Amino acid sequence: MLFTDHEALMNLALEEAKEGITNNEGGPFGAIIVKEGSNGEAIIVARAHNQVLKDNDSTSHGEMNAIRKACKALNTFNLKGCELYTTGIPCPMCFGAICWSNIDKVYYGCNLEDTEKIGFGDKLFFEKIKQSKKYEDNFIEISRDRCLDLYQDYLDIHGKADY
Amino acid sequence: MLFTDHEALMNLALEEAKEGITNNEGGPFGAIIVKEGSNGEAIIVARAHNQVLKDNDSTSHGEMNAIRKACKALNTFNLKGCELYTTGIPCPMCFGAICWSNIDKVYYGCNLEDTEKIGFGDKLFFEKIKQSKKYEDNFIEISRDRCLDLYQDYLDIHGKADY
Repeated sequence: MLFTDHEALMNLALEEAKEGITNNEGGPFGAIIVKEGSNGEAIIVARAHNQVLKDNDSTSHGEMNAIRKACKALNTFNLKGCELYTTGIPCPMCFGAICWSNIDKVYYGCNLEDTEKIGFGDKLFFEKIKQSKKYEDNFIEISRDRCLDLYQDYLDIHGKADY
Repeated sequence: MLFTDHEALMNLALEEAKEGITNNEGGPFGAIIVKEGSNGEAIIVARAHNQVLKDNDSTSHGEMNAIRKACKALNTFNLKGCELYTTGIPCPMCFGAICWSNIDKVYYGCNLEDTEKIGFGDKLFFEKIKQSKKYEDNFIEISRDRCLDLYQDYLDIHGKADY
């Protein structure tokens, strides 16, 4: 864990979120990504907020935008060593992005119930995953054999990058 | 459900995926988004593939890229009425994006176990969500009161867009 001032970093996430709602860019969600500098200090790598309305893009969440900016700033898809601050606990999409990018730790403000109360579906989406029968309802398997052939083609590529 | 040729659409997803792995852009994952045209035919709204390596961006999955393109093409964050074809069942990130964008149905080729066998963490990430204790391990709640104030500020905005 980075030795840092959690409240100060959450303040920045709050500032981001407030900018977003003031300008009607999306929901009240701001995110900050930090990593440890050479003297042990926290370096801010990315700051972003929800811009679903501004961008007309359902994937434009605060955490997603911060992760994409951090990948660009550090020129890597691997954010190992980074920590993320966010005003609301990540939804499944952002949780997945945090997993894929190897972010070490997440500090969040509001929990799933808080976010549900202001009209967002995060909790419902997690429940869909946990009740896997429901998750499958509108997910239909087709052409598995041909897709398995594709996977085999992928495995057979020699010297591919480590991913 | 759209009345359409599922195999033909999966073929396009496979083509996308093959283009991606041939050029070492990322994993073997292609995605197609379709919607119903005025004569009941399937109109291709977006096609994309995994470009995590090419973009150096952990969020650049086939489904994510297809959703972002579809939002842009249709000029909306709401993809209600659209269906998605993908060579591998969506990970939690892409599942979340599918939920947020209101995509009606998903046709996938390979399942989670298939994708695990070629070295990707999708199944593990779903298990982290299902075992919520583990999900919480590196997620830490801080500053909830101030973030709740932010949520209240959001609720208090009059005339905000419906989101």
